[in-house]
Amino acid sequence: MKLYTYFRSSAAYRVRIALALKGLSYESVPTSLPGNEQHRPAYRSLNPQGLIPALAIDSTVFPQSLAIIEYLDERHPEIVPFLPPDPISRAHVRSMALSIACDLHPLNNLRVLNYLRQNLGQDEEAIHAWYLHWIETGFTGLESQVRRFSTARRHCFGDALSMADICLVPQMYNASRFGADLSPFPTLRSINTHLELQPGFAAARPEAQPDAV
Amino acid sequence: MKLYTYFRSSAAYRVRIALALKGLSYESVPTSLPGNEQHRPAYRSLNPQGLIPALAIDSTVFPQSLAIIEYLDERHPEIVPFLPPDPISRAHVRSMALSIACDLHPLNNLRVLNYLRQNLGQDEEAIHAWYLHWIETGFTGLESQVRRFSTARRHCFGDALSMADICLVPQMYNASRFGADLSPFPTLRSINTHLELQPGFAAARPEAQPDAV
Repeated sequence: MKLYTYFRSSAAYRVRIALALKGLSYESVPTSLPGNEQHRPAYRSLNPQGLIPALAIDSTVFPQSLAIIEYLDERHPEIVPFLPPDPISRAHVRSMALSIACDLHPLNNLRVLNYLRQNLGQDEEAIHAWYLHWIETGFTGLESQVRRFSTARRHCFGDALSMADICLVPQMYNASRFGADLSPFPTLRSINTHLELQPGFAAARPEAQPDAV
Repeated sequence: MKLYTYFRSSAAYRVRIALALKGLSYESVPTSLPGNEQHRPAYRSLNPQGLIPALAIDSTVFPQSLAIIEYLDERHPEIVPFLPPDPISRAHVRSMALSIACDLHPLNNLRVLNYLRQNLGQDEEAIHAWYLHWIETGFTGLESQVRRFSTARRHCFGDALSMADICLVPQMYNASRFGADLSPFPTLRSINTHLELQPGFAAARPEAQPDAV
């Protein structure tokens, strides 16, 4: 099993957490986003979407972090389930995960910040304001939603690990790195503090990756 | 069952297709995005994410289109399944759906185009170029991926309906409305032509909604 990953990619970080939690070993194939390695023909032939991460199992290549995470959970449901058993709870967990994966993270992706800089001539101040705007917008909604469902402020939903936590920790890491003010999000901060140093999460941290610089 | 919807929202359009395919009746609650009705306190108290769509079933409110679609499929698996049975195929379908829902649609959302206009002072030409850039980027990857998996160019995966088709049709509609050149995407066009006028899809079209203007 090979994971095409970049140490700072939040989406790859999610999959690294999922693999670690399921106790699955894999080979890391560092694929530099700043180096545009995701656009190389050899990688594109594996993953036509040209995005990181992708998980290769033998000759099958899976793009998209949430699709990979659901796949790992369906194949290994007995080890640390990523979704609760009942459909209503599953929908709540998925909606939290998707609020990060659809409505927050893609807007602050490197390729988008590059477009703002290179195609729209925006300076670093404007790019930083853009970044912070979407963090604030996304986390404000998520903080409110998670507050309703987190019972011990250690996990997003109830008091068990889920796919929502797997998405939250990398996004919190990313937001801290960009200097976002996280004080308005006490529930998200509490959950992140609890989880980020747990074994599976710690092993997946950007600093712990072979391509970290 | 109530669907908070806006006729032109691609994400709401996906859920309308899913509800129609499952044969479920619901009450439409038009919630105007240009009118910022999604930010009203009454709506925010239902859906803290402040986004459209949300599905309310009794007192339970589900945000996020893909979470709603998975929920409807888990509750009504016997009627037109939205995912194939085996985990590998499910991962491929989810990765197609997510490539639209995460990496294409959110970048071209009304709120993002408004930010470009209002906060970054971009003119209509620059905003249109932004829109077309992400359509081209997203559809180029998806066309290539779908070409590998579509067997009759009537559905994205194999020759059966899936969640990927439910995401594709609204995105194609949106791209056409904004005048995108779809000629480089013959497989996506073929699938869309086959599906858009099928009963469930036709009933969900923006023009068929009570709030269409």
